[in-house]
Amino acid sequence: MENSDFKISKVGSPRFQSPISERIFESDESKIVFNNDPVKIIEEYKSKGSILAMDKAGPRAKIFHNPANSIAAILTAGGLCPGINDVIKGVVNTLCQSYGVKKVYGLKYGYRGLVPDYGLLPVVLDPDVVDEIHTQGGTILGSSRGPQDINTMVDSLIAMNINILFCIGGDGTLKCAHKLAQEILHRKLPISVIGIPKTIDNDISMVDKTFGFETAIYKTDTVISAAHNEAKGAFNGVGLIHVMGRDSGFIAVAAALANTNVNYCFIPEINFALDGKNGFLEHLLQRLDRKQHAVIIVSEGAGQNFFAGAEQRKDVSGNTLHNNIGLYLKDRIVSYAKSKNFELSIKYFDPTYLIRGVEAEGTDAVFCVLLAENAVHAAMAGFTDMLVGLKHFEFTHVPIDLATRERKKVDTTGQVWKSLVAMTNQPNFV
Amino acid sequence: MENSDFKISKVGSPRFQSPISERIFESDESKIVFNNDPVKIIEEYKSKGSILAMDKAGPRAKIFHNPANSIAAILTAGGLCPGINDVIKGVVNTLCQSYGVKKVYGLKYGYRGLVPDYGLLPVVLDPDVVDEIHTQGGTILGSSRGPQDINTMVDSLIAMNINILFCIGGDGTLKCAHKLAQEILHRKLPISVIGIPKTIDNDISMVDKTFGFETAIYKTDTVISAAHNEAKGAFNGVGLIHVMGRDSGFIAVAAALANTNVNYCFIPEINFALDGKNGFLEHLLQRLDRKQHAVIIVSEGAGQNFFAGAEQRKDVSGNTLHNNIGLYLKDRIVSYAKSKNFELSIKYFDPTYLIRGVEAEGTDAVFCVLLAENAVHAAMAGFTDMLVGLKHFEFTHVPIDLATRERKKVDTTGQVWKSLVAMTNQPNFV
Amino acid sequence: MENSDFKISKVGSPRFQSPISERIFESDESKIVFNNDPVKIIEEYKSKGSILAMDKAGPRAKIFHNPANSIAAILTAGGLCPGINDVIKGVVNTLCQSYGVKKVYGLKYGYRGLVPDYGLLPVVLDPDVVDEIHTQGGTILGSSRGPQDINTMVDSLIAMNINILFCIGGDGTLKCAHKLAQEILHRKLPISVIGIPKTIDNDISMVDKTFGFETAIYKTDTVISAAHNEAKGAFNGVGLIHVMGRDSGFIAVAAALANTNVNYCFIPEINFALDGKNGFLEHLLQRLDRKQHAVIIVSEGAGQNFFAGAEQRKDVSGNTLHNNIGLYLKDRIVSYAKSKNFELSIKYFDPTYLIRGVEAEGTDAVFCVLLAENAVHAAMAGFTDMLVGLKHFEFTHVPIDLATRERKKVDTTGQVWKSLVAMTNQPNFV
Amino acid sequence: MENSDFKISKVGSPRFQSPISERIFESDESKIVFNNDPVKIIEEYKSKGSILAMDKAGPRAKIFHNPANSIAAILTAGGLCPGINDVIKGVVNTLCQSYGVKKVYGLKYGYRGLVPDYGLLPVVLDPDVVDEIHTQGGTILGSSRGPQDINTMVDSLIAMNINILFCIGGDGTLKCAHKLAQEILHRKLPISVIGIPKTIDNDISMVDKTFGFETAIYKTDTVISAAHNEAKGAFNGVGLIHVMGRDSGFIAVAAALANTNVNYCFIPEINFALDGKNGFLEHLLQRLDRKQHAVIIVSEGAGQNFFAGAEQRKDVSGNTLHNNIGLYLKDRIVSYAKSKNFELSIKYFDPTYLIRGVEAEGTDAVFCVLLAENAVHAAMAGFTDMLVGLKHFEFTHVPIDLATRERKKVDTTGQVWKSLVAMTNQPNFV
Repeated sequence: MENSDFKISKVGSPRFQSPISERIFESDESKIVFNNDPVKIIEEYKSKGSILAMDKAGPRAKIFHNPANSIAAILTAGGLCPGINDVIKGVVNTLCQSYGVKKVYGLKYGYRGLVPDYGLLPVVLDPDVVDEIHTQGGTILGSSRGPQDINTMVDSLIAMNINILFCIGGDGTLKCAHKLAQEILHRKLPISVIGIPKTIDNDISMVDKTFGFETAIYKTDTVISAAHNEAKGAFNGVGLIHVMGRDSGFIAVAAALANTNVNYCFIPEINFALDGKNGFLEHLLQRLDRKQHAVIIVSEGAGQNFFAGAEQRKDVSGNTLHNNIGLYLKDRIVSYAKSKNFELSIKYFDPTYLIRGVEAEGTDAVFCVLLAENAVHAAMAGFTDMLVGLKHFEFTHVPIDLATRERKKVDTTGQVWKSLVAMTNQPNFV
Repeated sequence: MENSDFKISKVGSPRFQSPISERIFESDESKIVFNNDPVKIIEEYKSKGSILAMDKAGPRAKIFHNPANSIAAILTAGGLCPGINDVIKGVVNTLCQSYGVKKVYGLKYGYRGLVPDYGLLPVVLDPDVVDEIHTQGGTILGSSRGPQDINTMVDSLIAMNINILFCIGGDGTLKCAHKLAQEILHRKLPISVIGIPKTIDNDISMVDKTFGFETAIYKTDTVISAAHNEAKGAFNGVGLIHVMGRDSGFIAVAAALANTNVNYCFIPEINFALDGKNGFLEHLLQRLDRKQHAVIIVSEGAGQNFFAGAEQRKDVSGNTLHNNIGLYLKDRIVSYAKSKNFELSIKYFDPTYLIRGVEAEGTDAVFCVLLAENAVHAAMAGFTDMLVGLKHFEFTHVPIDLATRERKKVDTTGQVWKSLVAMTNQPNFV
Repeated sequence: MENSDFKISKVGSPRFQSPISERIFESDESKIVFNNDPVKIIEEYKSKGSILAMDKAGPRAKIFHNPANSIAAILTAGGLCPGINDVIKGVVNTLCQSYGVKKVYGLKYGYRGLVPDYGLLPVVLDPDVVDEIHTQGGTILGSSRGPQDINTMVDSLIAMNINILFCIGGDGTLKCAHKLAQEILHRKLPISVIGIPKTIDNDISMVDKTFGFETAIYKTDTVISAAHNEAKGAFNGVGLIHVMGRDSGFIAVAAALANTNVNYCFIPEINFALDGKNGFLEHLLQRLDRKQHAVIIVSEGAGQNFFAGAEQRKDVSGNTLHNNIGLYLKDRIVSYAKSKNFELSIKYFDPTYLIRGVEAEGTDAVFCVLLAENAVHAAMAGFTDMLVGLKHFEFTHVPIDLATRERKKVDTTGQVWKSLVAMTNQPNFV
Repeated sequence: MENSDFKISKVGSPRFQSPISERIFESDESKIVFNNDPVKIIEEYKSKGSILAMDKAGPRAKIFHNPANSIAAILTAGGLCPGINDVIKGVVNTLCQSYGVKKVYGLKYGYRGLVPDYGLLPVVLDPDVVDEIHTQGGTILGSSRGPQDINTMVDSLIAMNINILFCIGGDGTLKCAHKLAQEILHRKLPISVIGIPKTIDNDISMVDKTFGFETAIYKTDTVISAAHNEAKGAFNGVGLIHVMGRDSGFIAVAAALANTNVNYCFIPEINFALDGKNGFLEHLLQRLDRKQHAVIIVSEGAGQNFFAGAEQRKDVSGNTLHNNIGLYLKDRIVSYAKSKNFELSIKYFDPTYLIRGVEAEGTDAVFCVLLAENAVHAAMAGFTDMLVGLKHFEFTHVPIDLATRERKKVDTTGQVWKSLVAMTNQPNFV
């Protein structure tokens, strides 16, 4: 890829370097620019002599793993998300039908499936077994949270003769996959570890979207309509919706723009004041006086500053367990109204499990299939310690380490957030 | 309806007795037997010389209220329920199109709309205004809870020249409608008060079903599937679903039979033990050991014996506010498992507002239309202090007083409950 | 059930008379009056000394078939209908779990499964196999149309040691089941044949509703909305919807009342004129002139008089294959408008397969479960040549012969049709 | 944007050059590279000294039209598509709330609303009028096909003092908007004409996706499931689904990947043979022999070569009206099977109007809102003769002329089509 007068500064992933067979599919091995702006690209080129780019995903001319001798395994970890079973089906079908891999294991309950002490036998997956699973939500493999001992797991991979491992999961799962891959590279073992990012919060860096998010937004529609109906059905009615979004407000923002009956939207990226003349509570009462109803949507990670001093807990995956901002807001609204002798009626919604436990549909299901195929192409080509993502509508390879350094956030100076503010007319509560 | 040697002991409603116009539709004025069993009917006939029966609803040959001079009003009170707007549309269309009534008011926020102090102006309803409202959940009129002063409201009806009042609501609303009707009869005013029973809990006596219940059960389907997926997605996963059902378990039972992935169902009609060898907690852990997942559905009114001694609160409608059995169960399960060092993962669902704030669909919407028409037929014919119901697949008139004396309950010796027990295989936890 | 001075004139089904075991469940063996009207009941009683009644379904105190020796079989025939798999699941679970029957066969492709020449092996059904089938539309057993040789099939039942046969199907299927049962009675074989009526058209006599109909009506909602949107989206737009209803218009009527955007509804029970001053075509153009849009729903069996003289075809089940009234209406509307130089835009919808190929949901699924249980109770008690139905909200036994003598029709003098006419304001086109 | 040693070869749109007011929002006026590949970008730069790029959409620092004096108008033309009302709502809200435009007209029935002879009065739109329209499918403005006289329409714009016109429509609508804009530029009138591309077929060039397509794919899911159930429910059952896609197979391909029960997919981009040893008909029968069922999806524009010689018709928009390949395939399958004495049962589905007449949901609705806002930003900034699109996940400006030169096609050498072939295992039928 070198060139006489410039080079591409690739965001590159490790790859095993002795492909053993000839091409199966054609492949262009092309790259995708990381930056979209031509001015910046040329500036970068002229100042550094290079352009930042990512590997484009897809089938490679030469593959590293011999399908005839390969044993692949799939595991799912972390919380549910629409589309997991579509991804599993896609991985199995591509392995078996496109490459002719003979054996694919489904490991049970995430990384536990690689720890003999749990006594969890893997299930054997093939196209018949997975034929109808795309119509079910959840994961047929079961999931679990929390890391397991890296060396134990590598030993299990060796013991089971697994040379390709697909880890479907979020931040914690992917970090663990990275450690696994590093230990495998350290031991000089020819085992590919490929991550398939699963986060309903849509907060993985370096990728434009993750599977399940789209379906989840479709499913919030009836929730917002119900909240709106409850709000309008009572005198000074308030519908308060608490949605997922531990570090990033993507679900709250997209849900609010998808059903523009939302009047207030709070996300982790922006602090807001409840009290005072410019605080939310006073603004809400003024709105109710004027309109007699209001709908509020709040991300689980919003307003955590209100709990300063309270104990910080973490789940076994290492994610911060937030104090419940939804219930806190509800209490504060009720007591503020009471203090002002202001009648209102508040209804609380938490659709968390209802939007993540469903099957993926439509274009989200298409995305799952393509993501799965590209994960298999990367694995067969001998890549490792990487995940497949989408950038500028193209599937790409991203080193796991790079993608998990920080969470993707809603750009509060960008168009989507501005659009939300324009639609809701909500002020900055400072 | 008298006969030489037997008479029908009618469940009769008051009716104003000077019809002023000739027939609009044909009508058979027939009756519906209250009892279905021929043996009991003949026994009743022979011992009492009478057979208990209800008025069949429908258009009457002679009407009492002159459409040209009539002003009708509609109010909606209590919690939301699918189909309220369909009923409003049906009442308005039948009044205006079938009878030619010139003016129909929509009173705002339930009985408050009849209390001048609230300053709530009625909206004028006609077929154009209501043309598309059947596609929205909630109530376009707004609702409120709690009674208002009877005399004040009767005075308002007089002041507004309203001679027909439709009260759409549950137990509290109907009891208040009864008092209104009684005061009106006492004052000898020619004002018909007709109740249209709205209870998503399906717990009105003397009627086989109420509108909205059917749609609500359809909407629980995805909730149970999501709970099932969450339960199977985690090791020893438990999906716990808390549904409406203050005094009666109809929603829980029907939802469980509609999606037979439910393993335990708890309703207000049957007490159950948590502790002890035959208690639910031990049974649950044994099931998890065997199957690794479980789905539980619990009515809000179930297990209230666990709160004996705790403060009993009531809402402004006079309904008992239950201590939350769903959250209580969740806590007890978690702590019991902890005490046994038993790993489990529990996900909690409360779809209450998601199944009551939606629009009615399908045959439930058909039911709303027919119910509304029959309410109008009864009103125009001069009936009062009654509600329209469904008995043995026929629409009937029921005196409000009779229908609200006690709540309908799940028959725990009947087929539906037996069927649930057969499907879930759940024991009596005693 | 005899009584000193009156007897019940039962609508009775054959029953094998030597129950071999003691009660499993309690049972009341009670009856359901066929007529609801107390006046008619007493008249009947006094004139005939009897009251027409039906057996109430449910578990019997004594059963005829010994579960330990029983082999049951299930077949599904005729067109798809929502809920078939729910019924199959309910039958299997009740046989295996409530009665302890050891072997249940699923026969493939309807009656063909009993004809050795087709070479179709039965599948073995048990609670594990059927655990998730209620989430799929269609039938896991496959279906076929048309009768097979009765003697061959009885011979197969004997050869396979089947002593209980459930036939899930419509008019043709049930008539064939009746012939089977008659031949079995003739041969004095202790084999119960139980029908479970499946007709999405809801047109089986003696029963208030059939499974699948309710779900089908729910699914028409989006179709009518889409037709309404297409009609309003174009200048003089017409949405024309062709729905099932070979002999009876129940689907068309219920769909129209469930989404009151329908302006015209045509059913097999009422002839209508297209031409002339009072014909439909002129009325439609006048409406378009006034409102610029219209939605029409038509049953497949409506307006067959327009095809007088055309060839009458029948399908292999013996059902008349109608000339397509939907396409005929479309052509006639287009050519009439053209002849009047009247611009219009017509969109045609035929949701037949979209509303029958889905899974049953909600209260319809509950109905399937209860129907299946009662079918098993009837079979185990030794009844034969009967089907289970619903009458006055109670499950009943109905002799097959009685239920299939004629199709149930929309009562065009009854309330539902009057309600439709009131909502659509459509005249009689004569 | 010029630079000392290179320039951006912008895909630029006309813009009125005398902005009259200061910034409302910040804007970066940045560009988006047209090409994603860094190698090609640098080659382009080095050989031509320029890089092809598109204007990034968004609010501009200076606007051209004075909101206080502006009158905007919106029209919708061509077939329905999910999301039209969301776009209308977004345009109205952004004009009124973000810019303070005082008057917005909704023109009735597409370009007819600008032709006085039709006598169609515009409706006045404001945020209250459009508040709930996003919950309805279709278009509240009505639509029509076919061009109108350009000069007449420009005269109408002048007569109505309209200085901003939004044309929501497909290929024909946009071409007409281009002619309007050209005539306006020719007459030197300060009237902006902005296109908002609406094509459920997703076939507009230069843009990655169009609104409504995503929702449409979600809605095909139940259709494919129903077809699959029908296919499996009958012996040698075939479900044949005919979907939109006049020139491009995007809907068929995405629908098939979204519900991987499809076995054959035919699109306009690839010819296929029916007859012969390698033809589709023989392959289908072999599959049925092996599996007893098959699901086929076919785009309306596929297989048009079979009609060579047949008359070619066009609709008033100039689109070719295809001979119906769905019905043709059905006939050919039936007659081929008959000729081989092969029993099969075929069910035909045409969900065209069912997937285009629904409301947009989820992320598709979000897309509509953002598209509408960007259209308003472009208009207010004085751009004209352009449409707003999406490229590489960024909103861009595209000259209408450029976007309508040719239809976007499925890349039959690209990953999506290869993925479809891998999933269905279908050969090339040549």
